[in-house]
Amino acid sequence: MSHTAAQATIGDSEFDRDTTIAPRAGEPGVYDAELSAGWTIISAVNGGYLLALVGRALSAALPHPDPFTVSAHYLTSSVPGPAVIRTQVVRAGRNLSTGQASLFQFDENGAEVERIRVLASYGDLDGLPDTVHTVAKPPVIPPYEDCLGAEAGPAPIPGSSAIVDRLRLRLDPATAGWAVGAPSGKGEMRAWFELADGRDADPLSLLLAVDALPPTAFDLGLLGWAPTVELTTHIRCRPAPGPLRVGIVTRNLAGGFLEEDAEVWDSADRLVAQSRQLARAPRP
Amino acid sequence: MSHTAAQATIGDSEFDRDTTIAPRAGEPGVYDAELSAGWTIISAVNGGYLLALVGRALSAALPHPDPFTVSAHYLTSSVPGPAVIRTQVVRAGRNLSTGQASLFQFDENGAEVERIRVLASYGDLDGLPDTVHTVAKPPVIPPYEDCLGAEAGPAPIPGSSAIVDRLRLRLDPATAGWAVGAPSGKGEMRAWFELADGRDADPLSLLLAVDALPPTAFDLGLLGWAPTVELTTHIRCRPAPGPLRVGIVTRNLAGGFLEEDAEVWDSADRLVAQSRQLARAPRP
Repeated sequence: MSHTAAQATIGDSEFDRDTTIAPRAGEPGVYDAELSAGWTIISAVNGGYLLALVGRALSAALPHPDPFTVSAHYLTSSVPGPAVIRTQVVRAGRNLSTGQASLFQFDENGAEVERIRVLASYGDLDGLPDTVHTVAKPPVIPPYEDCLGAEAGPAPIPGSSAIVDRLRLRLDPATAGWAVGAPSGKGEMRAWFELADGRDADPLSLLLAVDALPPTAFDLGLLGWAPTVELTTHIRCRPAPGPLRVGIVTRNLAGGFLEEDAEVWDSADRLVAQSRQLARAPRP
Repeated sequence: MSHTAAQATIGDSEFDRDTTIAPRAGEPGVYDAELSAGWTIISAVNGGYLLALVGRALSAALPHPDPFTVSAHYLTSSVPGPAVIRTQVVRAGRNLSTGQASLFQFDENGAEVERIRVLASYGDLDGLPDTVHTVAKPPVIPPYEDCLGAEAGPAPIPGSSAIVDRLRLRLDPATAGWAVGAPSGKGEMRAWFELADGRDADPLSLLLAVDALPPTAFDLGLLGWAPTVELTTHIRCRPAPGPLRVGIVTRNLAGGFLEEDAEVWDSADRLVAQSRQLARAPRP
């Protein structure tokens, strides 16, 4: 574990250091990055971490700071090591701007291989009116201390997964049965979510949070790999400090694909992010 | 109404004629098109119709025929008239391929103005296994004959909207109260959906179906324009012949934006499409 003694802060944390982007001199909109081995599941880099990195590049490239809606199509698996993010401003409007970004890594000859392509519309969350009209309810999840952390026994994610040490993930016991061979069969996953060094959430870390829980397929009894084809996230509100609650539901597994619908709620009981992904179902 | 006497068929219908694309000689992946005035709401071209047109271009450009997941960011309003669709093959895999497309129109000087940019992953729906594991249920909607068509009185969409004549849309009376000044306040919209000339649904027309109902904001008592920022659609199954049922729900209107979650079910009771859009909320 790489916990720091003092609580990390937004801008000075593991997550911020590992999503650092370096503008390339003379190439506007191009950013070099290093995919950290700290955010891997087995050997692949976590898709939410990748998305946060691309999100940071778009935040730098676009005239508006905050992701409002981010659509990502996953092309090839990422591995720890160097990467380059190429961004393009598609449209700069008054309240919203739209950008595109691709993250590339390099093959043995140094040629760029595209990992993920993203279309996103950005705005300013702090400029939005306070009006809320919602019938959405936070996920029903037991108190933090009654949920299961990595220390509880079975790792939340099987295999040698470095990301487990970067997150303080506490699973609802009702959706953790798969870890002891007794999945609920419902296709649900719920957890408390914090970064391990205590850094509070911001819009960029929400892009990580929507894709950081074990796959809902585990709760259906399918313990294999469920690679993301496409993941779209809406950031609806700047999150308040404190732990997040994440609830994910799969309703329809069909034809070898499934959707994962995630909601992220903050400590002020606000729905801060909604996401949906299409993933390949693990083979039964 | 432009009903034909005989039932139109896939490939020979209003929808097919109005989504015709013409490959440009010498420019691979570039397609000319004409946005038909038949699919407008007030003066703007319907976003689902646009998406179907772009979807057809991607189907021509990619090695796989069917949209699996299509993410569209809407940039500027489209108007009837000429357009050009520029596609790019991002990745061609064995089971899935990913493409990008932009639809442009032209300003007074002939310069291209981008209307919509799309990232999409395509596959072959007929090549998928038949396995289904679902807890999703079709929308609860009264029988076709008890729902409200355009002839029932108030137009399903207010104003002079040509698209009304292209669709056989029959609204659930429970979600049509806004038309007589009594919205339910729930943010729901449900309807039977067919093309007016009787053409059966296919994956491309599903891209139209997810964005063809009146906005859920109407059911919240907000009767203004709710422009789409981003719309992502998953096509999960090739639809069976016969009318579709479309259910749309908004759970969270906040900060001046709302999501619309749509499901489309076919006559065989299968969930054939899921979509979510982020839209600007009409001003109260």
